[in-house]
Amino acid sequence: MGISREFGIAVVGCGTVGAATAALLCQQVEAYTKKTGIRMTVRALVDVRFDGARAAGLDENLFQEDLSAVLSNPDIHLIVETVGGLTIARTIIEKALYAKKHVVTANKALLAHHGTELFALARSQGVSIGFEASCAGGIPIVRALVDGLLANDIEAIYGIVNGTSNFILTAMVDEGKTYGEALAMAQAEGLAEADPTLDVNGMDAAHKVTILGSLAFGEQIPLERVPVEGIDSLDLFDVSTGHELGYVLKLVALARSTKTGLELAVQPAFLPQNHPLARVSGPFNAVSVYGKAVGHTMYYGRGAGGSPTASAVVSDVLSIALGTWPALFSTLKLWPDCTEEARLAPTGESRHRHYLRFNLHDEQGAVAAITAALAEKGISLNSFVQKESTNGGPVPVVIITHEATEHDLSQAFEAICALPAVEGEAICLRIIDEHVESI
Amino acid sequence: MGISREFGIAVVGCGTVGAATAALLCQQVEAYTKKTGIRMTVRALVDVRFDGARAAGLDENLFQEDLSAVLSNPDIHLIVETVGGLTIARTIIEKALYAKKHVVTANKALLAHHGTELFALARSQGVSIGFEASCAGGIPIVRALVDGLLANDIEAIYGIVNGTSNFILTAMVDEGKTYGEALAMAQAEGLAEADPTLDVNGMDAAHKVTILGSLAFGEQIPLERVPVEGIDSLDLFDVSTGHELGYVLKLVALARSTKTGLELAVQPAFLPQNHPLARVSGPFNAVSVYGKAVGHTMYYGRGAGGSPTASAVVSDVLSIALGTWPALFSTLKLWPDCTEEARLAPTGESRHRHYLRFNLHDEQGAVAAITAALAEKGISLNSFVQKESTNGGPVPVVIITHEATEHDLSQAFEAICALPAVEGEAICLRIIDEHVESI
Repeated sequence: MGISREFGIAVVGCGTVGAATAALLCQQVEAYTKKTGIRMTVRALVDVRFDGARAAGLDENLFQEDLSAVLSNPDIHLIVETVGGLTIARTIIEKALYAKKHVVTANKALLAHHGTELFALARSQGVSIGFEASCAGGIPIVRALVDGLLANDIEAIYGIVNGTSNFILTAMVDEGKTYGEALAMAQAEGLAEADPTLDVNGMDAAHKVTILGSLAFGEQIPLERVPVEGIDSLDLFDVSTGHELGYVLKLVALARSTKTGLELAVQPAFLPQNHPLARVSGPFNAVSVYGKAVGHTMYYGRGAGGSPTASAVVSDVLSIALGTWPALFSTLKLWPDCTEEARLAPTGESRHRHYLRFNLHDEQGAVAAITAALAEKGISLNSFVQKESTNGGPVPVVIITHEATEHDLSQAFEAICALPAVEGEAICLRIIDEHVESI
Repeated sequence: MGISREFGIAVVGCGTVGAATAALLCQQVEAYTKKTGIRMTVRALVDVRFDGARAAGLDENLFQEDLSAVLSNPDIHLIVETVGGLTIARTIIEKALYAKKHVVTANKALLAHHGTELFALARSQGVSIGFEASCAGGIPIVRALVDGLLANDIEAIYGIVNGTSNFILTAMVDEGKTYGEALAMAQAEGLAEADPTLDVNGMDAAHKVTILGSLAFGEQIPLERVPVEGIDSLDLFDVSTGHELGYVLKLVALARSTKTGLELAVQPAFLPQNHPLARVSGPFNAVSVYGKAVGHTMYYGRGAGGSPTASAVVSDVLSIALGTWPALFSTLKLWPDCTEEARLAPTGESRHRHYLRFNLHDEQGAVAAITAALAEKGISLNSFVQKESTNGGPVPVVIITHEATEHDLSQAFEAICALPAVEGEAICLRIIDEHVESI
């Protein structure tokens, strides 16, 4: 088996993902040469601190602080950016593209905010950007959308794409932990950042649905137009009560085609227990894709962590060395710099079931007033649970509605909240039933 | 958006998959041109009967009986073979390759038997064979193995890859149908062929594990070395009793790396109810792939049917037109004609739990004799169920063992079958617990 050529790589950013990527490339160099005929050579690790790289046992001769030396090295063909964030990472990627290096990145925030400009810059420089690792960790979901399912008009994608949130919700559902306890568990397991804001407020999932949705529908999705709700204000009472009624709470990112445009959302939602995504637990991710020809397909795996993310980063490196990714990148018209802005469905039109919870004083006619407010908007009840009062104070009343538009539901919800018997915080959560295949 | 060029396609074989493929290519021609810049033009439908093609509303001007005219047409770049079987289909593919046409096929039987020769022929002619549709219908699992997970040493694959068997087993588990009733249901639904032999005897799944295993492990897997057991002799009693004990019976195809070589199997096996593959129901397929870097990933979707299969066929057509598939096909060293024969693990070494069922005369000491025979081989019991005798005849006794090698278990099993208290047919089924990730 002959080696056709060498392909030089620099990894910029030696944190968890960067160190795991460099380690995987170095450990597997012979295996990759055997598989591809191309020798993948890590020529530099660029950072200002190398604790992680040292701990991963990486060759100290590769450590470099000088990015410009790397960028001017003609034997380096590709830069892996694993710095993260929106500032330095962007500069690094731009410099790499100007130096006509291919780029591989796991940086979903950067691509969701500035992907269009970065893709256009790469194109103008005749190089490509690989970003499989930016969405759902090790799961090859980007490839599924731009290659494996290319024959399909995509009708909908539904994803559990934030492992931290999913771990927290799984601990709340399965172990009865409060949100705060579950978050502390996630941090103790190394799954949540010291500052977990972007994970738990839904923004990380919004980054991913922006990227995946743009590819799936061949339309630009502006990040700021994705309605985002996180899991950080959830009450264990609702998680548990929903569970008793047969529903599992998940942070769901969705993009689906409707008659009036694309519906986008990131929100905590109840899934019926037999929903295909309901059993995706702990740190795992899954993305359901509904194609017009293929029907329902689903992709499942670890959404984060050094080694699974490195798997996706290195698969991109290999595809770029092989020329297959650059061919897709330069030819297909699915990338955000090649497409128009998506037409979005008007808000409030989405029609689905809802979980409602009110705190009710047990007065004569109170329940009748609630059902009347729903009936007023043509909303009928699927189930109704009223817990016993233990102290004479207000008691929680939980309602599962039949399908209604968000618009109608929110009007009824406001009317109910204004009833004299209803007190304090009221909750409305979406129920996502299994998407119906069109085939 | 300019059209860079035309890509001409002939579909040979106008059955369910062929007609669906041609229909999808024709319906989506503008969408594909927009996505790829290449105009995919169906130039001929070759068959001797065109009822299916007519029913699908395909243009009669495309109908052709003369394959040689198609093969000599320089404007046809690719032949889709959807004839099936081992004889005519092979000739068609060979002729197409000799005419230097790319080939796309869903023919798993042909590739499992003769893939090595056909791949080598394609390579010598400078063209490629696309076969995403041959394994697990519309699920892009071939691409996952040769592209998305390329960074990984694959450790194991476990698949539910025969939709007919899975439909039958789902009907037995969920609805208490006998094997015969469930098969009749599958035939009524159009899921089982008039002759369902290859589906229910496990051979179809063996074809698929031969193809997928060869790619996953980069080693040739000779079809005749896959131990195959079907679902056609299963008794509803065992399916139901296993279900009561918390297990779901599935036809599982597996290939996994062990210290002594590759373990291969196609067999009905019990999965614990929380196993990742246990909820794959009805006509759906799923394949779990365990990679050394990525850990567990799973791919789920419809394993058969005209439209899902056409999705995979057409994705191959697009990848060939784009040049990405030919690049992988000509460069990677994973294809069976580029690899050595796999070293297989010796039979009997596989270690797992078992479900055993005996018909026992309720004699003094009979149970003690069974447990003694198991203890003799160091096999301990996980659970033991003895049903009541209703007529004084033998009663079924069901045992779930702890882990034991197949070798030890089969010796104990034979010893038990030879006991005077044991009468008639005895059953031994594998239990497949969730594979442990190495990350």
